[in-house]
Amino acid sequence: MSAEPERPRGRGRPRSTEADEAILTAALELFTEGGAGAASMQAIAARAGVGRLTVYRRWSTKEELIAQAIESARADIPDPDSATLAATSLPDLIERVLPGAAETLARPGFRALLAQTLGSTQTHPRIMRAYWDHHIEPRRRVSMALLERARDAGDLPAGTDLEVLVDMMVGAVVYRVLQPRPLDAAEAERFLRAVYTQAGLLKDPAADG
Amino acid sequence: MSAEPERPRGRGRPRSTEADEAILTAALELFTEGGAGAASMQAIAARAGVGRLTVYRRWSTKEELIAQAIESARADIPDPDSATLAATSLPDLIERVLPGAAETLARPGFRALLAQTLGSTQTHPRIMRAYWDHHIEPRRRVSMALLERARDAGDLPAGTDLEVLVDMMVGAVVYRVLQPRPLDAAEAERFLRAVYTQAGLLKDPAADG
Repeated sequence: MSAEPERPRGRGRPRSTEADEAILTAALELFTEGGAGAASMQAIAARAGVGRLTVYRRWSTKEELIAQAIESARADIPDPDSATLAATSLPDLIERVLPGAAETLARPGFRALLAQTLGSTQTHPRIMRAYWDHHIEPRRRVSMALLERARDAGDLPAGTDLEVLVDMMVGAVVYRVLQPRPLDAAEAERFLRAVYTQAGLLKDPAADG
Repeated sequence: MSAEPERPRGRGRPRSTEADEAILTAALELFTEGGAGAASMQAIAARAGVGRLTVYRRWSTKEELIAQAIESARADIPDPDSATLAATSLPDLIERVLPGAAETLARPGFRALLAQTLGSTQTHPRIMRAYWDHHIEPRRRVSMALLERARDAGDLPAGTDLEVLVDMMVGAVVYRVLQPRPLDAAEAERFLRAVYTQAGLLKDPAADG
């Protein structure tokens, strides 16, 4: 990661020129429609209406570009800044991101993108590697810190394996989104609530009533 | 499903002729290597060394064939018969399947197959549909019955959403297997234990010591 140019991370899309936006959009569309095989640097440049050099000036490999294009698709799930993270309880943070996350999960394009991303781990492993290192891993570290805080505060049992808990929460969402019957936004929100409740991070509404 | 010829389900591979075995193996290899696009009926027949008619006599669509080929890859995770299910506690059932499951998860071929299967949900949705209806759904019903028994016995909290719990357990495994750093068999077994422990289905070993 140290050889990478600095970019703002974990706040949706980086600030970028119009050409960058067009390139990311083209990469996202081509990858979602046809997978990594269809998203060559040449095809991306052509669809974005820019020269190939313009693409290479900003991204040295198509894997890096596709990884950032995947990230751009979740721009409407905002990551809270560190002051908010420090000042807000975990249940409140979850409530804050939940509606936007549910909307994203219900989008057919997101489902298609998720399928192509996971599918590419076999044919083009460097895409998932780049996406993992630049986008998932930093976010995962934030999640781990929040979960440690919750465990230290006694909101999660002391013996909780937090890495496994994260895999169960994220994995449930990934797996549910790819099942044959897609979720609409309301179902996605109920599903997310149920996952966080089962994980012990939201209160069971039945227990309050 | 009613139009399907009867086959034994949920016990690994069906009894089949030598040609059937060769066809399933060819389908599994081609799909794992190159996805649904590479696994045409013609290519499968050619690799299996049989005529196309032989394939069509047994499977009317390539989606049905690929779905059964995917299923054949998990033949070493045996599903217990109903007498065993009735007579055995859930923790003991889990202990019984766990080593074989861990071996399967650690196989590079399984990882590749999982990636292609999830990837195909975008490009060839009928494969996942067939795999889901014929192989996942029946197994899920068995799991749900076991989890209901555990909940009725007080081993799981009364309010547990069992569908969500299944998605969290299966999802965790799917998601972990596809992460950039693959698990070896020992790690996979530890991971599975941690997932079942977090789900409340195995006792926390730390709590015993």
